[in-house]
Amino acid sequence: MSSAAATSGLARPAAGHEPATDVVQVYDTTLRDGAQQEGMNLSVADKLAIAALLDELGVGYIEGGWPGAIPKDTEFFARAAKELDLRHARLAAFGSTCKAGAQPHDDPQVQALVESEAPVVTLVAKSDIRHVERALRTDGQENLRMIAATVRYLVGLGREVVLDAEHFFDGYRYDRDYALACVRTAFEAGAATVVLCDTNGGMLPDWVSQVVTEVRAATDGRLGIHAHNDSGCAVANSLAAVAAGAGHVQGTVNGYGERTGNADLITCVANLELKGGARTLAGDGLAEASRIAHAISEITNISPYARQPYVGASAFAHKAGLHASAIRVDPDLYQHIDPVAVGNDMRMLVSEMAGRASIELKGRELGFDLAGQSELLTRVTTRVKEAEAAGYTYDAADASFELLLRAELDGGRPPRFFDVESWRTFVEHRPGADGQVDSEATVKLRTGQGRMISTGEGNGPVNALDHALRAALVGTYPEIEDFELIDYKVRILDSQQGTDAIIRVLIETSDGHESWSTVGVGTNIIEASWEALTDSIVWGLLHRGVEPR
Amino acid sequence: MSSAAATSGLARPAAGHEPATDVVQVYDTTLRDGAQQEGMNLSVADKLAIAALLDELGVGYIEGGWPGAIPKDTEFFARAAKELDLRHARLAAFGSTCKAGAQPHDDPQVQALVESEAPVVTLVAKSDIRHVERALRTDGQENLRMIAATVRYLVGLGREVVLDAEHFFDGYRYDRDYALACVRTAFEAGAATVVLCDTNGGMLPDWVSQVVTEVRAATDGRLGIHAHNDSGCAVANSLAAVAAGAGHVQGTVNGYGERTGNADLITCVANLELKGGARTLAGDGLAEASRIAHAISEITNISPYARQPYVGASAFAHKAGLHASAIRVDPDLYQHIDPVAVGNDMRMLVSEMAGRASIELKGRELGFDLAGQSELLTRVTTRVKEAEAAGYTYDAADASFELLLRAELDGGRPPRFFDVESWRTFVEHRPGADGQVDSEATVKLRTGQGRMISTGEGNGPVNALDHALRAALVGTYPEIEDFELIDYKVRILDSQQGTDAIIRVLIETSDGHESWSTVGVGTNIIEASWEALTDSIVWGLLHRGVEPR
Repeated sequence: MSSAAATSGLARPAAGHEPATDVVQVYDTTLRDGAQQEGMNLSVADKLAIAALLDELGVGYIEGGWPGAIPKDTEFFARAAKELDLRHARLAAFGSTCKAGAQPHDDPQVQALVESEAPVVTLVAKSDIRHVERALRTDGQENLRMIAATVRYLVGLGREVVLDAEHFFDGYRYDRDYALACVRTAFEAGAATVVLCDTNGGMLPDWVSQVVTEVRAATDGRLGIHAHNDSGCAVANSLAAVAAGAGHVQGTVNGYGERTGNADLITCVANLELKGGARTLAGDGLAEASRIAHAISEITNISPYARQPYVGASAFAHKAGLHASAIRVDPDLYQHIDPVAVGNDMRMLVSEMAGRASIELKGRELGFDLAGQSELLTRVTTRVKEAEAAGYTYDAADASFELLLRAELDGGRPPRFFDVESWRTFVEHRPGADGQVDSEATVKLRTGQGRMISTGEGNGPVNALDHALRAALVGTYPEIEDFELIDYKVRILDSQQGTDAIIRVLIETSDGHESWSTVGVGTNIIEASWEALTDSIVWGLLHRGVEPR
Repeated sequence: MSSAAATSGLARPAAGHEPATDVVQVYDTTLRDGAQQEGMNLSVADKLAIAALLDELGVGYIEGGWPGAIPKDTEFFARAAKELDLRHARLAAFGSTCKAGAQPHDDPQVQALVESEAPVVTLVAKSDIRHVERALRTDGQENLRMIAATVRYLVGLGREVVLDAEHFFDGYRYDRDYALACVRTAFEAGAATVVLCDTNGGMLPDWVSQVVTEVRAATDGRLGIHAHNDSGCAVANSLAAVAAGAGHVQGTVNGYGERTGNADLITCVANLELKGGARTLAGDGLAEASRIAHAISEITNISPYARQPYVGASAFAHKAGLHASAIRVDPDLYQHIDPVAVGNDMRMLVSEMAGRASIELKGRELGFDLAGQSELLTRVTTRVKEAEAAGYTYDAADASFELLLRAELDGGRPPRFFDVESWRTFVEHRPGADGQVDSEATVKLRTGQGRMISTGEGNGPVNALDHALRAALVGTYPEIEDFELIDYKVRILDSQQGTDAIIRVLIETSDGHESWSTVGVGTNIIEASWEALTDSIVWGLLHRGVEPR
């Protein structure tokens, strides 16, 4: 056991309450089971970006999807092989055992798993006899044959095979012998791991503990746990399985998933590492967990849950009151772990110390030495806090933060490459245009070389505005010809007020060598976009060493 | 034990895994500890309304606040005595033991508890010797005296006294004897219940189980559990305490609370009732739990969490095409309980993996019997697949799906409430407008009553368009005056192409009674918004039974 738990300030758990294994495999299924969440719809590019973040977190396995069944997932595996450079994780393709009456080498769905070239194949198999008979409409023997044949076939091709035993717990409680036969069959055919799935999510920790203990006694091989949160116990069920001897935990970042979601993988891992003393992640990704969880929620465009354990914005936020002054003296008496262990912050201290410290750190990262400039740090911290209260976020917009910082360094004046006189954009569906919609924008501004008026068209108001702005500036600053808008994200911050809500726009711009991100906020999406667009051009010019002309 | 677990379709838990007591007291602290949540600010009227809902749920105790310390809470108790007609619950006033060196009858804070006239007083007391010495700045003996004197004083006045032993688990693991002395002292002075609090929320179920078992063996009286969710185990920790002999569970509705929140009381209760066979609530409030949880979130103005166990909007929503055909036949094999037991519903989500089976099920949910209409089902399934490939999503836009379905039922023609001739919107930052940005839209359309032209303003182009559209239609269809846009979401579908990406807009509209969601897609955000806006009006009119005029 490592001594990681020492950071928690908690007494170590008593013997007998520790996980039975030191090393627990971490298997992420955000991209497959997590994507079942209501309202989630990930593009291939989204999936690739999330996979890179999961690898950074240090998970052992990334389940990328179901090639063959879902065209987007077939494409994911093809692109992942070329574009992803994974340091820690192995890619897993998810699929089903061969069909009843079929052989794996004749089953197109199994062939798609082979063709995905993923080194790991995770096969879902029925282990509840009722599902075998009523959903598969075959018999128990045939299902065992399908498991054995498919596992053996894939192992023979050199793949690591994980078997997800679907509805295992319900099946075990209904027909213990049949459920066990499925597990034994998979191990005998060469499966590296058999994962006991609480597919309906209704288990409680004591039930999981009892079943895993019994299965472990009755079979020989690595068991895993796949829990859903329908009883509100997905994390506890995962821990109970590990304590009973499971050596493999499946889950999703931010607990994404169908219905109430899957086990929140970061919460499981943090509990196992920081409280159970188990080794789970490769590298030191746990210390980056908050940033990674937040970045993934930017990609899924699902608002982060402030009360999420460990990584939530409120997870270490103490409301001033009963404990306020005592917390200042003895923070360890008021938090279950040191938030630094998961890359989070105790928020009460943010305004006084941690905020300034992290701004100093970020400044250094951007090339500004702010050490000892106490007054400046206070000023910047105050501006950041005010801006974040208004809806800005600088986590994902370093370039906007740098502009804010430079403005304070230069005595509050931002660099002036141009002065905007006016802009307008319109979108029109003309009579008789057969559904065609036109977007146009006009920008009037001044540079040192005079007054510029330009009009741009586009396939939307922001695109038109972007074109008009560039057209107005390119004569004075030909450097911007290289700048290209490569990402544009919109988030509604308070979704309880319809279109009156505050809107945050994040823009990523590239010059072919590097990319930078800027943020704009407003009740008006066009205004917010304009702010982010102009910031992106100013930052790009600054970093090219261009002087205002 | 009751046979309530039979509704779950689960085998009963094995002996030894059931709660040790049949009847578990349910103590709600939404109005006190829940109100510590970041961003929550309840008025006295809010608190009274929530208390009435909690009583309807059937909890045994409602902790109303801290009279004396918080003026609003003093007022709450004064008004509650007059205005609340509680059928099930007893009101509890929360406060602290008397100060070091003081007597309860001289301590104004204790006197405020007495004056609240609440029949139950819950006293928070330190039980971790480190907190006694460092936060209270007194010694262990004096703290025991404060507990004994305050409990005895209030019991002498006829109050039921609950003692909340703060930081109990951390304190017990640091100095077992002192923590136990606090519990014994409270019981000896007449406390009805001593609640073991995991104030920092860092416990895991096995640790809770062990500590509660030991305390139960070492003391004599009713123990309670008060868990926070910092380890993601608040519910499981509460269940573990009950299984180890605690007969009183504290928690909050929707898991509100500081940091990661308190134990979600409805999840605890549903697990205990439906899976553990314990008796917890008075009456049959559990069957109303979903409505009550949502009503409370309306009052707190904190968006309900769709993935919340039991009562969340997604808790029984199935997306996977994999299972859809089987779910139709055997719903009990795919859900951990019958959602009716908690007043929730099973929902089918129409997703890109949709097959004909899930579309048939979804149709039935919306009131259309499509069974046997094979050709129609194929047509609808094809249209859904094409639309989803283009970026539409129907799992969050039931109303748009219904319009698609109705159009196919009517031979491909959507209902025509109006014909759009043209629309336009513009956003302008005028010269010298000092940063002000104007948005305006004009809509031209025809109804059976003639040609309508209207202009609307707004704080953004979509808002302006919404206003113009309503203004053009309200003369013909006054019903739309009740429609209100309550949510607006934008998603960029392929975020690798800047503003050329495909944009999906989801709009939620309410008429005060129900709400419905529509979707629009396009490369142009305004065009996508227009589609969702017009769909929302058409659906609303259809469901009011309005005929085209």
